[in-house]
Amino acid sequence: MKSLFAALVLAAFLPVAAQADEGLWTFDNFPAAKVKAAYGVDITPEWRARVQAASVRLSVGCSASVVGADGLVLTNDHCATDCAHDIGPLGADYRRDGYLAAKRTDEQTCPGLDAEILEGVTDVTPRMLAVGVGLSGIALVKARSAGAGAIETGACGSDRHYHCQLVNLYQGGQFKLYKYRKYSDVRLVFSPGDRAAFFGGDPDNFNFPRFDLDCAFLRLYEDGKPVATPYHLRFDPAPPTLGEPVFTSGNPGGTFRDLTAVQVETQRDLSLPMSLTRLSELRGRVIAFGETGPDAGRLADEYLQDLENDYKVVFGRLFAIDNPTFMDAKRAADADLRAKAEAKLGPSLGDPWADMAKIQPAAQALYLHDVLIERNPVDSDLFEYARGLVRAAAERAKPSAERLPEYSDSQLPIREHQLLDAHTVEPAIEHINIEFWLTKVREHLGADDPDTKLLLGRDSPQTLADRLVGASRLADPAVRKALWDGGMAAIQASDDPMIQFALKIDPEARRIRAAQEDQVTGPTERASEAIAKARFAVYGDSVYPDGTFSLRLSYGAVAGWSDHGKTVPAFTTFSGLYDRATGQPPFDLDPRWAAAQSKLNPDTVFDFVTTNDIIGGNSGSPLLDAKANVIGTAFDGNLESLGGDYGYDGAVNRCVVLSSAAIAEALHKIYGADALLAELMAP
Amino acid sequence: MKSLFAALVLAAFLPVAAQADEGLWTFDNFPAAKVKAAYGVDITPEWRARVQAASVRLSVGCSASVVGADGLVLTNDHCATDCAHDIGPLGADYRRDGYLAAKRTDEQTCPGLDAEILEGVTDVTPRMLAVGVGLSGIALVKARSAGAGAIETGACGSDRHYHCQLVNLYQGGQFKLYKYRKYSDVRLVFSPGDRAAFFGGDPDNFNFPRFDLDCAFLRLYEDGKPVATPYHLRFDPAPPTLGEPVFTSGNPGGTFRDLTAVQVETQRDLSLPMSLTRLSELRGRVIAFGETGPDAGRLADEYLQDLENDYKVVFGRLFAIDNPTFMDAKRAADADLRAKAEAKLGPSLGDPWADMAKIQPAAQALYLHDVLIERNPVDSDLFEYARGLVRAAAERAKPSAERLPEYSDSQLPIREHQLLDAHTVEPAIEHINIEFWLTKVREHLGADDPDTKLLLGRDSPQTLADRLVGASRLADPAVRKALWDGGMAAIQASDDPMIQFALKIDPEARRIRAAQEDQVTGPTERASEAIAKARFAVYGDSVYPDGTFSLRLSYGAVAGWSDHGKTVPAFTTFSGLYDRATGQPPFDLDPRWAAAQSKLNPDTVFDFVTTNDIIGGNSGSPLLDAKANVIGTAFDGNLESLGGDYGYDGAVNRCVVLSSAAIAEALHKIYGADALLAELMAP
Repeated sequence: MKSLFAALVLAAFLPVAAQADEGLWTFDNFPAAKVKAAYGVDITPEWRARVQAASVRLSVGCSASVVGADGLVLTNDHCATDCAHDIGPLGADYRRDGYLAAKRTDEQTCPGLDAEILEGVTDVTPRMLAVGVGLSGIALVKARSAGAGAIETGACGSDRHYHCQLVNLYQGGQFKLYKYRKYSDVRLVFSPGDRAAFFGGDPDNFNFPRFDLDCAFLRLYEDGKPVATPYHLRFDPAPPTLGEPVFTSGNPGGTFRDLTAVQVETQRDLSLPMSLTRLSELRGRVIAFGETGPDAGRLADEYLQDLENDYKVVFGRLFAIDNPTFMDAKRAADADLRAKAEAKLGPSLGDPWADMAKIQPAAQALYLHDVLIERNPVDSDLFEYARGLVRAAAERAKPSAERLPEYSDSQLPIREHQLLDAHTVEPAIEHINIEFWLTKVREHLGADDPDTKLLLGRDSPQTLADRLVGASRLADPAVRKALWDGGMAAIQASDDPMIQFALKIDPEARRIRAAQEDQVTGPTERASEAIAKARFAVYGDSVYPDGTFSLRLSYGAVAGWSDHGKTVPAFTTFSGLYDRATGQPPFDLDPRWAAAQSKLNPDTVFDFVTTNDIIGGNSGSPLLDAKANVIGTAFDGNLESLGGDYGYDGAVNRCVVLSSAAIAEALHKIYGADALLAELMAP
Repeated sequence: MKSLFAALVLAAFLPVAAQADEGLWTFDNFPAAKVKAAYGVDITPEWRARVQAASVRLSVGCSASVVGADGLVLTNDHCATDCAHDIGPLGADYRRDGYLAAKRTDEQTCPGLDAEILEGVTDVTPRMLAVGVGLSGIALVKARSAGAGAIETGACGSDRHYHCQLVNLYQGGQFKLYKYRKYSDVRLVFSPGDRAAFFGGDPDNFNFPRFDLDCAFLRLYEDGKPVATPYHLRFDPAPPTLGEPVFTSGNPGGTFRDLTAVQVETQRDLSLPMSLTRLSELRGRVIAFGETGPDAGRLADEYLQDLENDYKVVFGRLFAIDNPTFMDAKRAADADLRAKAEAKLGPSLGDPWADMAKIQPAAQALYLHDVLIERNPVDSDLFEYARGLVRAAAERAKPSAERLPEYSDSQLPIREHQLLDAHTVEPAIEHINIEFWLTKVREHLGADDPDTKLLLGRDSPQTLADRLVGASRLADPAVRKALWDGGMAAIQASDDPMIQFALKIDPEARRIRAAQEDQVTGPTERASEAIAKARFAVYGDSVYPDGTFSLRLSYGAVAGWSDHGKTVPAFTTFSGLYDRATGQPPFDLDPRWAAAQSKLNPDTVFDFVTTNDIIGGNSGSPLLDAKANVIGTAFDGNLESLGGDYGYDGAVNRCVVLSSAAIAEALHKIYGADALLAELMAP
């Protein structure tokens, strides 16, 4: 248990050859021979096929696994909190108190949530490369989007049971079509509530030893009935053993390990400090808002769970690369790859590293307008609804190939699901975010920037936020449905202030996006592809691609680590939870846990750590033993792994797992969820 | 008018030979010949002596000048806002509404404020170097402190009319004794109020064009009577002219231009991002607190003026050096100096750059505990009172040479003045800061760090802040006086929770300080001295020392600049203010200004920019013409100059000045301050 900073200042994610246990491996290029040699386990193609068939991707950015014959899915509680929040009736706080469906008919649909299981992968690299021949800048970007859309639609058609997605692997080295079986009716079965799932709160987040029951159960439905899933994995409540080989199957989010040094420098010098500054101030605003009363406190606590997690991740990323040793090694790795590739490829290689360096001034110059107006402007449901409705209306009027790619035929159903389902919108949090956004636009672009004037006019951030949030009716799903169905005519006729605001700024946002695609995205794609080619020429298939929130398999072992000479044990037990509870938030016990203390086996393995290489997006991944049984669910990395976007250090990076043993014990003795437990334990 | 970010991303504070107009020159090493050649002005020793005699340093971290025969002093309003806040009677808001003493007897003493005029400088370099011979680590630090204290006391004795201060110039290259005539009764004569002085608020802070009447007048008193100051400078309300040579005399705060690349890297990678993160979250907390009601809003706005200024400065500093071009040039400059010095000095030079690099891991490892527990833990009056009283009690029991240097005989009167004068303490702001501090201790050191446990015990940050702020009586000056007079016995017997808290953590804070001095401060002093020796050997006296909040003279000219091809004019006028006013804060007019519009000459030069090299601490510096007449008061730099801690770029760095012309016009037509104006204009 130590400081994030101390963990990071000494970390060494050096971009050298892959270490033991490193890798976000695709299922079709898993280093089975290496694993066999290291751990004596045979990860056969059949093993992988079986695991793939039961591996689930959740559209909230999480992973999961099918663990029962009737569509029962295990994931993390923190992947189900939005659902718990949305479905709780007035006066109930499922997020805090948890939820257990007493019977199947009590299982309620999570709004907007899609679950997907990968059915097949097709290599479309030649076709996608052909699409880009002779093009550059925005023309390249647009041609590739259109090409991807055509491939996706060609493979999935308009079948809403499927989702086809083109995945760019190895930073432009491969293009693959991923075809998913999609389930759009996913219901909540069980959540323990976040006092048990997130005991220790932000101070313990990413920490270890840890004492969190971070699990939830969902169920896949179709046509109003649970989906039959005979291919489910076996849930095994036996405790893990030290040194045991283990595997995670999940969807690591975007990582940056294959980026060049100049790209990482732009993150270090610009995007990460800007993000950290933004998250810090927003965090401060939300914390102070939460102190104004009990209702505000509840809202703030919920929102802070995500916000402080993001903050810690960005903090970890920045401090991992804010490190001359790391950057020197990164530059050396670039130079080494370049020299080796030149020897193999000769002059045909060109100098994509120099090209990448030349892109950075434009990336820096365009960054602020892009991030503030177009790419990721504000965390607001109402604005996202408005922008989504405005853009869907405009884009649906075009042929799929000419649309913004997120509105292409293959993506539109997911967008529609997100936009039209009923979510709980919190006006107070909306107001904080909209006002904060407008303030940052004025601060970072300047009071006299044309974009500041476009957004604010003669208003102050506060008066505009008052009007946009106060008078918008977009929280009502029926209003959104009418605007979706009515298309651009309805949008233009709407007097909803948020719709009119989104409509007003949309041309400028699109202009900014086009500039970004022309000067940054397109040229970066070109340079990345050349570097990927160099990497394949030098390393062959011994390398894994950066994370892309698509299915990967990692391997490792149950193991603690040594922290400056002190051993951090691999396991915690229930008894450790009771020792750590002080009674003061966030170290206060859920009352059910306090009451059940004497009934629980205090030596039950609670959480544990493994050497598996995971990253955000892997949350909810099953932790599998050699037989592909589910012995836990991965829910976090340790502090040392927060720089994992840039590399992996097997000596100290750890995956944090909730044991199946703890889940079984808690379901039985604390939550009385014996029917659920029986379903899990069914042969 | 542009974005801070855009200003900085393209700035180039390259650490090369001093540019035209660059330099924070000491009065005894002013490049008079260079100025004569460039501007045709003779800055004679007599000119400098006359300016020095009327240049004032204020203990709030500002500069000022004597501009009238009866101790009348001109500075910035933002240097007098704390005073205005402190002296305002209940129900009055001098800070917002301003203050004009109708007659001399209405002039009220600013609590804790000292004004100092430099009388003489003595070189004590040989003596200070001798003190350190053969010592290293903490022994060096302690010997130097004792040596400095002995020199200071030797020169000033116990005469409270004087303050003697040892100043380390050129990062260890020279040690000089500065002897100041000190005035401890400084009274507020006039403040325009911050709606006029700080029109445009944070969005316009460091911006230009600018429209701020950022001036205040103070008066030096002694024995209850105004001090006679026949040596005052002449206040000249004639408008400045384009290209006119101008000078600032003031006290630039600590800069880092002579630091080595590895030291700047530690700032870039650690201290600056940590500061920015801290300031951002605190800013967010204060902004959200300010939205809870009108009283909270007023408190928050006041506090935010300082906080957002600090934030912008740190932002500017970080983004100036978050720049591979800057860092490459910095490294090249280190290597160049090293090569040239080796050629001159041979092996006696050693390798202080390598020594400096070896110190950085310790500097990084000790940083967080030092900054969170000892160096700069929290912006809280109550905690500062408690720590000051606890330490003063302990230190006064020792001989001066053995004390912490800030409690030596020469410094003690200033500390006593600050600790015992009546200030307004704002419990709500105190609570925010204390709770925030404790949260950051837990976050950055970890919940299980011994220092976190020492500070928090079983409390949460909130419950401890409730108790410390809620029950402390240290806001009462009488309580502080009794504890000061009672010494350690009174401290130990006190049941004030803040006193007991400061007492409890003091041994650990001192231990941290000792480790820092031993592993960082001492070794850095040694390496810095060797590098300073190298710099003198190579550059002779053609270089100026980094800022040390001691008296410096800068030169330059009235000049706009070119911003990406667009010319920013050098002057604004009153009419521009009325054009910029939107009616929405912070672009709303002070009602007196709104009412006076038709009376004012719209073409009066309001604010203007010059090429003078200034930095924080220079605020309030007189802007002098060739005849040493005061034609304005410097109150800001432009956004481009925010990286000024690391260098100066004459093409775009500008000093922002309020014209004497505007002051005279406003005093007469807006504030009816004709007596004050007559005093200013007296021959």
